[in-house]
Amino acid sequence: MHVMVIGAAGMVGRKLVEKFASEEGALGYDISRLTLVDVIEPPVPQGLSPVAKALALDLSTEDAAGKLVALRPDVIFHLAAIVSGEAEADFDKGYKVNLDGTRALFEAIRHEGLREPYVPRVIFASSIAVFGKPFPEKIGDEFFTTPLTSYGTQKAICELLLADYSRRGIFDGVGIRLPTICIRPGKPNKAASGFFSNILREPLAGQEAVLPVDENVRHWFASPRSAVDFFIHAARMDTSAIGPRRNLTMPGLSALVGEEIEALRRVAGEKAVKLIRREPDPVIRSIVSGWATDFDARRACELGFKAETNFDEIIRIHIEDELAGDI
Amino acid sequence: MHVMVIGAAGMVGRKLVEKFASEEGALGYDISRLTLVDVIEPPVPQGLSPVAKALALDLSTEDAAGKLVALRPDVIFHLAAIVSGEAEADFDKGYKVNLDGTRALFEAIRHEGLREPYVPRVIFASSIAVFGKPFPEKIGDEFFTTPLTSYGTQKAICELLLADYSRRGIFDGVGIRLPTICIRPGKPNKAASGFFSNILREPLAGQEAVLPVDENVRHWFASPRSAVDFFIHAARMDTSAIGPRRNLTMPGLSALVGEEIEALRRVAGEKAVKLIRREPDPVIRSIVSGWATDFDARRACELGFKAETNFDEIIRIHIEDELAGDI
Repeated sequence: MHVMVIGAAGMVGRKLVEKFASEEGALGYDISRLTLVDVIEPPVPQGLSPVAKALALDLSTEDAAGKLVALRPDVIFHLAAIVSGEAEADFDKGYKVNLDGTRALFEAIRHEGLREPYVPRVIFASSIAVFGKPFPEKIGDEFFTTPLTSYGTQKAICELLLADYSRRGIFDGVGIRLPTICIRPGKPNKAASGFFSNILREPLAGQEAVLPVDENVRHWFASPRSAVDFFIHAARMDTSAIGPRRNLTMPGLSALVGEEIEALRRVAGEKAVKLIRREPDPVIRSIVSGWATDFDARRACELGFKAETNFDEIIRIHIEDELAGDI
Repeated sequence: MHVMVIGAAGMVGRKLVEKFASEEGALGYDISRLTLVDVIEPPVPQGLSPVAKALALDLSTEDAAGKLVALRPDVIFHLAAIVSGEAEADFDKGYKVNLDGTRALFEAIRHEGLREPYVPRVIFASSIAVFGKPFPEKIGDEFFTTPLTSYGTQKAICELLLADYSRRGIFDGVGIRLPTICIRPGKPNKAASGFFSNILREPLAGQEAVLPVDENVRHWFASPRSAVDFFIHAARMDTSAIGPRRNLTMPGLSALVGEEIEALRRVAGEKAVKLIRREPDPVIRSIVSGWATDFDARRACELGFKAETNFDEIIRIHIEDELAGDI
């Protein structure tokens, strides 16, 4: 099978590709060819070099989608996007990359299929940003999408396109609404959601971290390992069980910041917790107050998607996957 | 105020413009200039000729949106679309007219506003086709949009764009999800929903009509007069009461085909009812079985939108507005 990952240099994209390298048959079939795409040339993990090819290509530029689809991959993971803050700051770029880029990919598949029968599996990275407050206490699978950012709007539109193209048999699509990924590896970044990871990752590495909100802030989480497993499961699953509602809110863990800190104390002790410095930031507090806090992701659970059920597990996964088991 | 109606040659568009002609101040202000647009030159009602200009222009063609917006109308009614059946049969045309045409209009407004401050009111004709079965018994205001046609997908996408452009202050948008309009004036057409009107309109005119489904089929209706009033109200209302959820399911009447027939009997007698010929059509029955049957349109009602509450009223409106009170 020919597998393509668009957005293969991003955090989840890289981890997905690393999984292909570390676990033969992760997708349930052999990968005879692997095409890795991103705006910068994505890394090729050791062991995959015989089958993998890395391409630096911007999906939103003329003909890029056509070039990729001409390779006729059997499975396409589409994770390429600019992030929420950038899409809000740059209206044109957000719509060009997140909407037009995705639509160009879908259209390229349609035209390839008109030329010669072709119905790939397409797994699309969506986001809980498709929802906008006010919310019920738990957001169910039939709650409407009223995004309050251009990023969320672009994701919600792509979800609609994915469902329509799948309904018409142009491709076999699954939309994956990711929770906030925690613990994000790497350095602290300036994303408003960064602190959810920072306050665990930095103390685990003996570094100070800033907490800009109260401990009673609730949010919706899954580990990077779960995120990778969502994509793998979406590629392997029998899509006939999904029906026409192709976009699925992934399972996750609804937890308070205070519960994150308690889990850190249990796993790494008081010394780690003391590295969290409280520095209330009204701007971040206000942004975060608009985010969803809890979901009833029943459909995805019934379809076999799984996530963590407590923060101790999320921390242990980080220690295993990022710190070689060592703190 | 400069008012523009795009799709002014369609059934609702014509009736909206006729209302401007027949009722001075219908919009709550003087219309100093009226621009009527459609792919064919729309008619200008008597009395409006001093202020009205009719243009034959296809919104989905290059520069068309820019030309219209350069006129800087204060209020834009956007009703132009190709219908459901055509959008399903012609994928390219459906997306080009219903999605790209609307987006071009929204983008033209954004660019005009970047050139010189400009925030028009935009009223967009959406449809209950944004919903797809299975449904709850009554579809509430927070039910999600999972269209099962490309037409419904295009409308749902334009709703998302309208909300995002409004949130950003690019224009002041209201999306109006119309019920099935009944009694549609004119000749029987081949739309799958045509019979809902045909079985009343034709017998009222002494003509035979075909009923292709059972009497226990339920559907969601409003009169053409209500449809016009929805648009007028959306143009007049204080939009600050709407908040960011800019797309509203309009109120309507949930009724059985059997109730339509009973109302016809009360208003026009047994002789009229006898003109309905039952000719079951499994294709139409199957299409209709996928349609929504009932809504709880609470938000629109609270915001002052109104529709009929029984079929006698719907029939009487047809007799008044189309048959000069005479049957």
